[in-house]
Amino acid sequence: MKAAARTLLASPRHPLLRRFREAWRRGELTADGCCAVEGQHLVEEAFRSPVEVVALLAAHSAEERLARFEAAGNGRLPSYVTSDRIFRSLAPTETPQGLAALVRLATPPLEEALSRPSHGAGLAVALIGLQDPGNLGTILRSLEAFGGAACLLGPDSVSPYNPKAVRASAGSLFRVPVYRGVAPDKILGLARRHGLQAVALAPRASPALNQLDLTKPTLFFIGREGSGLPDDLLKQVDRVARIPLAAGVESLNAAMAASLALYEAARQRGFKE
Amino acid sequence: MKAAARTLLASPRHPLLRRFREAWRRGELTADGCCAVEGQHLVEEAFRSPVEVVALLAAHSAEERLARFEAAGNGRLPSYVTSDRIFRSLAPTETPQGLAALVRLATPPLEEALSRPSHGAGLAVALIGLQDPGNLGTILRSLEAFGGAACLLGPDSVSPYNPKAVRASAGSLFRVPVYRGVAPDKILGLARRHGLQAVALAPRASPALNQLDLTKPTLFFIGREGSGLPDDLLKQVDRVARIPLAAGVESLNAAMAASLALYEAARQRGFKE
Repeated sequence: MKAAARTLLASPRHPLLRRFREAWRRGELTADGCCAVEGQHLVEEAFRSPVEVVALLAAHSAEERLARFEAAGNGRLPSYVTSDRIFRSLAPTETPQGLAALVRLATPPLEEALSRPSHGAGLAVALIGLQDPGNLGTILRSLEAFGGAACLLGPDSVSPYNPKAVRASAGSLFRVPVYRGVAPDKILGLARRHGLQAVALAPRASPALNQLDLTKPTLFFIGREGSGLPDDLLKQVDRVARIPLAAGVESLNAAMAASLALYEAARQRGFKE
Repeated sequence: MKAAARTLLASPRHPLLRRFREAWRRGELTADGCCAVEGQHLVEEAFRSPVEVVALLAAHSAEERLARFEAAGNGRLPSYVTSDRIFRSLAPTETPQGLAALVRLATPPLEEALSRPSHGAGLAVALIGLQDPGNLGTILRSLEAFGGAACLLGPDSVSPYNPKAVRASAGSLFRVPVYRGVAPDKILGLARRHGLQAVALAPRASPALNQLDLTKPTLFFIGREGSGLPDDLLKQVDRVARIPLAAGVESLNAAMAASLALYEAARQRGFKE
């Protein structure tokens, strides 16, 4: 194992720090397509996922925690240290852990993701207008947990690279492919072409979700928190189903609804652990 | 309908404003036992729930929205207006909606909640060491959605009156009784006395949740995000079960785990909508 070569970044205007700052501030990828992640757990998740870790960054006080990740990169990974003050000024949380990475995600072409039998083909979600980054991250976590192949985002959904979405995904963003800005019409076309039944969730719809045959290849449409799915989309899907709720309860939040739908599909399919 | 008598509060030191400020800052009830809630949706939920709305407060720019709630209180409800600046300085969110209320919750004695057949007796959750207020609020929402009777909190759990918990509960806090600071031993004793099987959720445990008979009266134990339930508690419960997850996925977040368990119980019981 080679000794790690760490670069000390004393100026907050260093290009590497600008990449982190811009990505976190905008909740988007860097200009060269990397996802900026913060916190020891997410950096660990990146190393155990099929993604490329491009650079490591530590605050001075967390520098000792770099060594094991540098070793995981065989000493060839660019590794940077900056002051705690500069790190805090960049970081997307109020109390950052002082450890961060730039990660290049590996996203296969959408058509391929929907047809690869080894990657959960037969189960996917489409999120139309989802606004809450924590909900998006939670849905990615459920999608991986219940064997989903892909997450399709409508044109006006929150960014999956929003730091809150990345954190809530707990690493699932590194393993579940996400496709942004896919229009509902295009999603319906993809579902037809790949033999997925399009099931929209809506309160008070009939039948109940558990009365549908979800052993068939299925794509779930989940709508915006509060307003749900647009009426014209509800008319075009194969089925509209409700999650059965106790009297007087109007709805669940989008992350719960999606998680329960994915659980129900996995349950009907006998779970693949 | 009587005309509403609104009081203008010009000083941020007015006792009514202090009650809101203290409650929100500490994430606790006011000294006289009221829950402070912010946002139109939560105020609406309070009015449609079996709780007592004690006072209304609006920022000047939201004053027109007071009228319908004053009418709901038959004009007898104390109603206050303050400046937008003061309201913002009190409020628990960065972009408050300018409408708030003090609400007195109606929580029956714990033994009664666990035995009232009309209130979902036979399904409850105990949260041990839960730290995230959003997760707690989400669990309350699921508990109500799937017909649960009560939420028991261990001694070191987050406060259900934390503004983030109140918001995530979307009003379920007004309808599902929550009991704080109940030691795990006491919870186990209550479960035995009320004939509830105590089921703890833990990753990699056996059997899978869906292989348990959850048509029996059941109390689910859910642990802290990350570290889960204490080992000594896992030894004392009736069953330890896992939620079946795809290979490589370590766990779900506490709110998802609880929601899926409650869904599975309601599903096995044929849902009561």
